[in-house]
Amino acid sequence: MSMASDLSNPLLQTRDPAKRSWLASANDAACDFSIQNLPFGIFSDQRNGAPRAGVAIGDAIVDLAALRVAGLLALDADDDVFSRPSLNAFVALGRDVWRSVRVQLSALLDAACSTLRDDAALRARVLVPMSDAAMHLPVDIPGYTDFYSSKEHATNVGTMFRDPKNALLPNWSEMPIGYNGRASSVVVSGTPVCRPMGQLKLPDQDRPIYGACRKLDIELETGFIVGRGNALGEPIACAQAEDHIFGMVLLNDWSARDIQQWEYVPLGPFNAKTFATTISPWIVTLDALEPFRVAQPEQTPEPLPYLRHTGDHAFDLALEVRLRPEGADAATTIARTNFKQMYWTMAQQLAHHTVSGCNTRVGDLMGSGTISGAAPDSFGSLLELTWNGARPLALEGGGARTFIVDGDELTLAGWCQGDGYRVGFGTCVGKILPARG
Amino acid sequence: MSMASDLSNPLLQTRDPAKRSWLASANDAACDFSIQNLPFGIFSDQRNGAPRAGVAIGDAIVDLAALRVAGLLALDADDDVFSRPSLNAFVALGRDVWRSVRVQLSALLDAACSTLRDDAALRARVLVPMSDAAMHLPVDIPGYTDFYSSKEHATNVGTMFRDPKNALLPNWSEMPIGYNGRASSVVVSGTPVCRPMGQLKLPDQDRPIYGACRKLDIELETGFIVGRGNALGEPIACAQAEDHIFGMVLLNDWSARDIQQWEYVPLGPFNAKTFATTISPWIVTLDALEPFRVAQPEQTPEPLPYLRHTGDHAFDLALEVRLRPEGADAATTIARTNFKQMYWTMAQQLAHHTVSGCNTRVGDLMGSGTISGAAPDSFGSLLELTWNGARPLALEGGGARTFIVDGDELTLAGWCQGDGYRVGFGTCVGKILPARG
Repeated sequence: MSMASDLSNPLLQTRDPAKRSWLASANDAACDFSIQNLPFGIFSDQRNGAPRAGVAIGDAIVDLAALRVAGLLALDADDDVFSRPSLNAFVALGRDVWRSVRVQLSALLDAACSTLRDDAALRARVLVPMSDAAMHLPVDIPGYTDFYSSKEHATNVGTMFRDPKNALLPNWSEMPIGYNGRASSVVVSGTPVCRPMGQLKLPDQDRPIYGACRKLDIELETGFIVGRGNALGEPIACAQAEDHIFGMVLLNDWSARDIQQWEYVPLGPFNAKTFATTISPWIVTLDALEPFRVAQPEQTPEPLPYLRHTGDHAFDLALEVRLRPEGADAATTIARTNFKQMYWTMAQQLAHHTVSGCNTRVGDLMGSGTISGAAPDSFGSLLELTWNGARPLALEGGGARTFIVDGDELTLAGWCQGDGYRVGFGTCVGKILPARG
Repeated sequence: MSMASDLSNPLLQTRDPAKRSWLASANDAACDFSIQNLPFGIFSDQRNGAPRAGVAIGDAIVDLAALRVAGLLALDADDDVFSRPSLNAFVALGRDVWRSVRVQLSALLDAACSTLRDDAALRARVLVPMSDAAMHLPVDIPGYTDFYSSKEHATNVGTMFRDPKNALLPNWSEMPIGYNGRASSVVVSGTPVCRPMGQLKLPDQDRPIYGACRKLDIELETGFIVGRGNALGEPIACAQAEDHIFGMVLLNDWSARDIQQWEYVPLGPFNAKTFATTISPWIVTLDALEPFRVAQPEQTPEPLPYLRHTGDHAFDLALEVRLRPEGADAATTIARTNFKQMYWTMAQQLAHHTVSGCNTRVGDLMGSGTISGAAPDSFGSLLELTWNGARPLALEGGGARTFIVDGDELTLAGWCQGDGYRVGFGTCVGKILPARG
């Protein structure tokens, strides 16, 4: 595509690396919320306690409901589409509408646009400082599915719990293995999480005991949000699957390893996972992620035809996990990895999910599975980082961890690094509270 | 409790076995929808295509929205509570309201009550013949969980696929094993179901093939509908769990056995189940089921304290599975069993589901797991009835079945038999259509 046609396409202009905003905080090369990003979320603030739709820019939030009332957002939709407590109604309007809103916001926030830049009263009505806002779940989630698509993670788990010589089960290389999660307990970043109670099977006892989880863990994941569903009985083809994705979030699939080990055969993890799943509040659209598209790892054997796609379907998304003990000043970064090395792509996950005829709905959340790299400091769970507790991790400022201790705050962070700007996800944070007796 | 106090309690009066309705069809001893039953559902008809709330009585449906407009239903609720396309708003009003509506309907339908009996014009407004009605899903289902609580079923499956000498896994006797299902593909009785496509691993080939399921099966189950949820982090105690249950339905957990066998290790069944789950349209309340409460089987070892309850928590509910080939006049009853022999109770299932802190919501559906008895003709799946295809079932009128053939119509039926009346569930029907290429 020639430069001339690029510049004539408003969607491509929203991704111009040279674009800058009149909001200075957005132009910092390390700011997650550049003018190239424009992620969607649901927020409230002290001035207006009603959860409503917003877009992150720099250290502020554009109040989409207020922007529409001000007549600055052209949209063929119900008047209250941005005043609702979830983005579902907006997302259901379809990709042309998401893109139109992105293009209009990109223009309004551009350094060269005077409409908001030069009108302090208008800015006061439509811009909310992030520090004044509370974030809410961005979508109502009708269904949550979690995949298991990192080869390194599946190999590590198989090595620890099954057979090191045949760590990867034969089905793993043939399909993006996944399972149904529990949508009710998906919470937004910042929500405290209680250590779960449950059945634990101790090696020295014949019967399980009831008690608090002793091996509480994180799983560093991303998730994608379905933007266009499919009808029951009508699978989504792999080549079209990305058209059904609205955007991505960070996802922490909290896991009680001891509960999991005792319960998971033969029907899979249940109570070990259902107590909480935390997601980041801002949905970064596929439109914003487009410049960071890279080739997925080679797949051997070649997938069955329904799982094939051409072109690049991975995304170069740097990820970190940080642990901060109760009262500590500083967090320790305990893992650094990248989403681009995931074996199965989001498109393949969605094609596989629907190949049976299963329907998906706007707002469905699909977790990637734990994102582990090859290096031991790139593993996406404490289970792997400490090799099931055998190799404690040293923390900055003293102390060490095998699994999570009460009061620990776990933070996931992720960003795509452009030339002088970031398309970032912000953070996905959860602090562990003691178990309820 | 003395008879005198029984008769002074309006709720107990609704269960009086001697009670009869002025609607003759309700008084047949084999009619599922006696005046003692009064199950709730969502229906529409040609006169009014809007799905709305109704209660089944004999061969008719009481239109609750119309009854309220007629001023015959006292209720402290929004005017449109019965005009909505799901029962969730009504169920969310709580047990006192469910019971009040039950008591009022029982009085209006009583043979001795002239209000409707003697007013043909009024009856025409509030009664719809079942034969004119289409039934819809009774509730929006925010979450669907499926348990595995029949000892006989778990033993049969373990014998076939794992180790006959240790068919029951050690965790099975300690907890009601369950897994998250897919809520999006729960459909109402009568909805055709396409044979699913997916990955099949044939024994003579190294790699799986993509194709139509060759071992399509039913699972005879019941399900309960959550009537009162719990907050995240606040488990439901076993002794209080039944207070959280609105009522029960029949449930067919369609299963693609070949897809399941290849995909289910280690994260459990996924595509083998997500293509469809069928439920019966009428929710039979726990209030109606109360006279059929019986003792559950003895549990050895004694469950951990969080899974203990006193008293009787099983229900004497007869169940049948019928198969009718395409074009056949008659169906063959292929299994007869009873819900009362389930090892884990609904109360224990709900206590276990929430012990980790997992929240539940109004409308959540919880499947019992396949209900198999000890006798080979009381197994709740073709997998067990034909022992994985080794023992074909003869059909009346000729032919035989191992697994389901395209065009087969499968029907679940269930009822509690009282003295001269039934509290029945109606049927849960699904016909299998050929796979989409």
